[in-house]
Amino acid sequence: MDSKTIGILGGGQLGRMVVEAAHRLNIKTVVLDAAGSPAKQINALDSHVDGSFKDVEAITQLAKKCDLLTIEIEHVDVEALKSVEKQLGVPIYPFPETIRLIQDKYLQKTHLQQHGVDVVESVAVEENSEEALAAIGQKFGFPFMLKSRTMAYDGRGNFVVKTKESIPEALEFLANRPLYAEKWCPFTKELAVMVVRLIEGEVFAYPTVETHHKDNICHLVYAPARILDTLQKKASLLAQNAVKSFPGCGIFGVEMFLLPNHELLINEIAPRPHNSGHYTIDACVTSQFEAHVRAVAGLPLPKGFSNFATTNTNAIMLNVLGDKEKNGELAVCRRAIETPNASVYLYGKESKPQRKMGHINVVGSSMAEAESKLRFIMGESTSLPEEAEPQEKPLVSIIMGSDSDLPVMAVGANILKKFGVPFELTIVSAHRTPHRMSKFAIEAAGRGIKAIIAGAGGAAHLPGMVAAMTPLPVIGVPVKGSTLDGVDSLHSIVQMPRGIPVATVAINNSTNAALLAIRILGAYDYKWLDEMSQYMNNMEEEVLGKAERLEDVGYEKY
Amino acid sequence: MDSKTIGILGGGQLGRMVVEAAHRLNIKTVVLDAAGSPAKQINALDSHVDGSFKDVEAITQLAKKCDLLTIEIEHVDVEALKSVEKQLGVPIYPFPETIRLIQDKYLQKTHLQQHGVDVVESVAVEENSEEALAAIGQKFGFPFMLKSRTMAYDGRGNFVVKTKESIPEALEFLANRPLYAEKWCPFTKELAVMVVRLIEGEVFAYPTVETHHKDNICHLVYAPARILDTLQKKASLLAQNAVKSFPGCGIFGVEMFLLPNHELLINEIAPRPHNSGHYTIDACVTSQFEAHVRAVAGLPLPKGFSNFATTNTNAIMLNVLGDKEKNGELAVCRRAIETPNASVYLYGKESKPQRKMGHINVVGSSMAEAESKLRFIMGESTSLPEEAEPQEKPLVSIIMGSDSDLPVMAVGANILKKFGVPFELTIVSAHRTPHRMSKFAIEAAGRGIKAIIAGAGGAAHLPGMVAAMTPLPVIGVPVKGSTLDGVDSLHSIVQMPRGIPVATVAINNSTNAALLAIRILGAYDYKWLDEMSQYMNNMEEEVLGKAERLEDVGYEKY
Repeated sequence: MDSKTIGILGGGQLGRMVVEAAHRLNIKTVVLDAAGSPAKQINALDSHVDGSFKDVEAITQLAKKCDLLTIEIEHVDVEALKSVEKQLGVPIYPFPETIRLIQDKYLQKTHLQQHGVDVVESVAVEENSEEALAAIGQKFGFPFMLKSRTMAYDGRGNFVVKTKESIPEALEFLANRPLYAEKWCPFTKELAVMVVRLIEGEVFAYPTVETHHKDNICHLVYAPARILDTLQKKASLLAQNAVKSFPGCGIFGVEMFLLPNHELLINEIAPRPHNSGHYTIDACVTSQFEAHVRAVAGLPLPKGFSNFATTNTNAIMLNVLGDKEKNGELAVCRRAIETPNASVYLYGKESKPQRKMGHINVVGSSMAEAESKLRFIMGESTSLPEEAEPQEKPLVSIIMGSDSDLPVMAVGANILKKFGVPFELTIVSAHRTPHRMSKFAIEAAGRGIKAIIAGAGGAAHLPGMVAAMTPLPVIGVPVKGSTLDGVDSLHSIVQMPRGIPVATVAINNSTNAALLAIRILGAYDYKWLDEMSQYMNNMEEEVLGKAERLEDVGYEKY
Repeated sequence: MDSKTIGILGGGQLGRMVVEAAHRLNIKTVVLDAAGSPAKQINALDSHVDGSFKDVEAITQLAKKCDLLTIEIEHVDVEALKSVEKQLGVPIYPFPETIRLIQDKYLQKTHLQQHGVDVVESVAVEENSEEALAAIGQKFGFPFMLKSRTMAYDGRGNFVVKTKESIPEALEFLANRPLYAEKWCPFTKELAVMVVRLIEGEVFAYPTVETHHKDNICHLVYAPARILDTLQKKASLLAQNAVKSFPGCGIFGVEMFLLPNHELLINEIAPRPHNSGHYTIDACVTSQFEAHVRAVAGLPLPKGFSNFATTNTNAIMLNVLGDKEKNGELAVCRRAIETPNASVYLYGKESKPQRKMGHINVVGSSMAEAESKLRFIMGESTSLPEEAEPQEKPLVSIIMGSDSDLPVMAVGANILKKFGVPFELTIVSAHRTPHRMSKFAIEAAGRGIKAIIAGAGGAAHLPGMVAAMTPLPVIGVPVKGSTLDGVDSLHSIVQMPRGIPVATVAINNSTNAALLAIRILGAYDYKWLDEMSQYMNNMEEEVLGKAERLEDVGYEKY
């Protein structure tokens, strides 16, 4: 695809997956790391460089074999990179200056702030003294986070300063490290977005995902995040803006906090492929690794987001960490390969406790499906992270013109509940809240709603008016009023003009409206098709049971 | 994942993709082929064996390094394999005996025939003489196919004997080769199914696909095949039965012909990963390569077919062949990486004319979407293979109780046509053809129908009865009869009992029924959601246009 050879500083699992992606495009790679490292194992094209990615000599040796350099880890020697770039003219992506800014978490934060990107409030610790920290405690309040500015990852280098009394312990724990402090951030969820930047400055974002940590190490990633669409978009824009602030090219992992008030603050950025993007191998057309290869090699990415989206796919990534017992972690992998919709990725590493040995991706047409598979893989007793935000995204929306319709509509809502269909229910009145109705109708499809059930009595304009402003299927339930037996609403709902259909059900029959909505979901999602078939079979059995009883006891006694 | 080392005879692209899949599971592989071959390029774990996979010495050397052997090509030395198996006790999958049977295409056919699997009728050529071939011509008629029993691939070793007069030319073309003849098979489509067999005998089939050749080399693969679901299933069962006839384990590519009378005949089988299965990398959870690795390494595959299915995904694979001009084929790859939903796979080979250099997978929520992307990749002027079988699988089914309903229902059919929704239209009467109705309703979901539109007048039982026997959404159109203005049918259709919904539209308004069906498709398929939004915008513009005119010319002149 391209005659350039890419040198990679670091040969761990990230480098390995970059090498794999490069192979598929016939792009040569050379790896600098210890002999036999994961990335080197899968590349016999050329001789690699054995050594440390912090060593100038080794970096120079690598650069001499390559047309450009990139990194799989940011803890490299930036000065060495700069001198190699200058002396050999080998371009380095991300730019060494970007790596320098990001290496130092405090510099990273001030850089982002200067570029108008929201970050957690933080302050440099000018001197590692009790006085300095006490002053910060006064400024930020307790608890606050004390962090090493550099060489901190997977929670190492962080200390929670709970009270003034814990300051000496904090100083001891982080002794001799350059420090900064962060205001305590009581987030409800941790989110992450992978963003790839082309050299011309164009950025593409993968979906916003939700990350869950265990012992400060990434444990699970839910893609997309189980939060409102509007928040997903807000997070995506924040991540894109952050990445736009770094010239150069390559992929970036942007981690952020979601606060209870729906504010989003960037926690930190990784200028390389990231653990929170491993799901892209199975859930997206172009993986984060291929996106990185293309970006640094100067190859294009298609316009639009379709290669990065997880259309109709929900994915969960589970990190496989080394077990206390050597290779004990393989048990979970063995269960995964027997589980439908799961894929296992191992990194060719020797098993050590808490080491990242591999990951497992599970996909599903719904997050509930993916979770049930994951539960089997992790062992039945596992508890999965709760959704801090609103329950699973609603698929069906039930609206009614007035709360007086609720007794009728609640019956349908109960059907959806019984089937486990995520839904929302609210009052939207065509005549009393016309603007709310417009907004609701216009936004419904974008929010992931698949069908709308609208109940209305009397003039009953709601179903038809909503149908006029959404391309989604709208189901109308005529609600019986005090006069005319509901025929007025029936005719008002069903006799729509050509062009705008409303799927009308029987008077007061919100049960059928709910069942119809489930059939609509079932047309494309087999899960609901199966559930509906099961429901119909049960109904048949129930009636057959009654018939048997009737025949048994006779119609007089029945 | 497994401590076994797999030896692979052959290091071409198939071996390369097997090695890639094995890496992901931490399964070691060693390759026997020329130095620097594609599979070796991506494996630096161990030293490979340089040499020919037909050489006993080399095979022995490979076997000594491995726990089991497999192949990426069937043209290997079977006797050598057998002796290695015997001497070193290294298992070989597929079994050497299977390879022997498959190597000789005539033996392969007789083997399948003996196992009750339908194959193209063929006869061995006992002696390569004009008399023998003339006798075959009399038996089979002209034209017939003359084929080399061994070492024939990509059309090499085949000759079409058009008339008696072409016999000498045929003999010269295939001189000194063991021959057999096949009856001419006027197929409408070539199909293929990848089937993986576990050592215990369990088989799993990937979807039935449609293959298209150019100069006898695989050019395009459509997955799934654009044929009736019933035919897809028939092809899948035929392929599974064929593979069941071979003991051992591993993946098999089963190629077959579809005849005009819908008969299916097996053309040939490859006991290894196959070009027709490359789409599985992007369209299935488990690729054909990983399935093969798991099967031969004795690792499980999940029950059911979900890892092998292409649920809601349509894929097309395009082979990238070496251009006349060296590396000229990269032009198509460059277009592909700029095309949404396309993925490029290159094999690390030196460019040579007609050589398989790589492949491109394009996915889409509909085949039409995938085809439009493919057309861009191949260049606008390209003509893609026509569907020989019925047009794209219908998504919507329009049924009516009587042909007297047609004038009303045809209006809806025209709407579907205008939108380009694949649909079917027929007569199904609840009262006059109750059994046909049941069959229709029961089979609809399995055939891929997503919504049913049923029109009926008078007692109008059809929509409700169909809804009672399918979990799909059913849309009812009350057709106005000669009395009661259609209110009779409206009430009959809309007033369904709780449990069985019918989405009822206005009397005679099949337009809205069609639009509702499209909204149902749009709930999950963005293509139709977009089309519906566009339609609604146009409708708005049209009415605004009329309003403007009315205001311009005044209501008297309008």
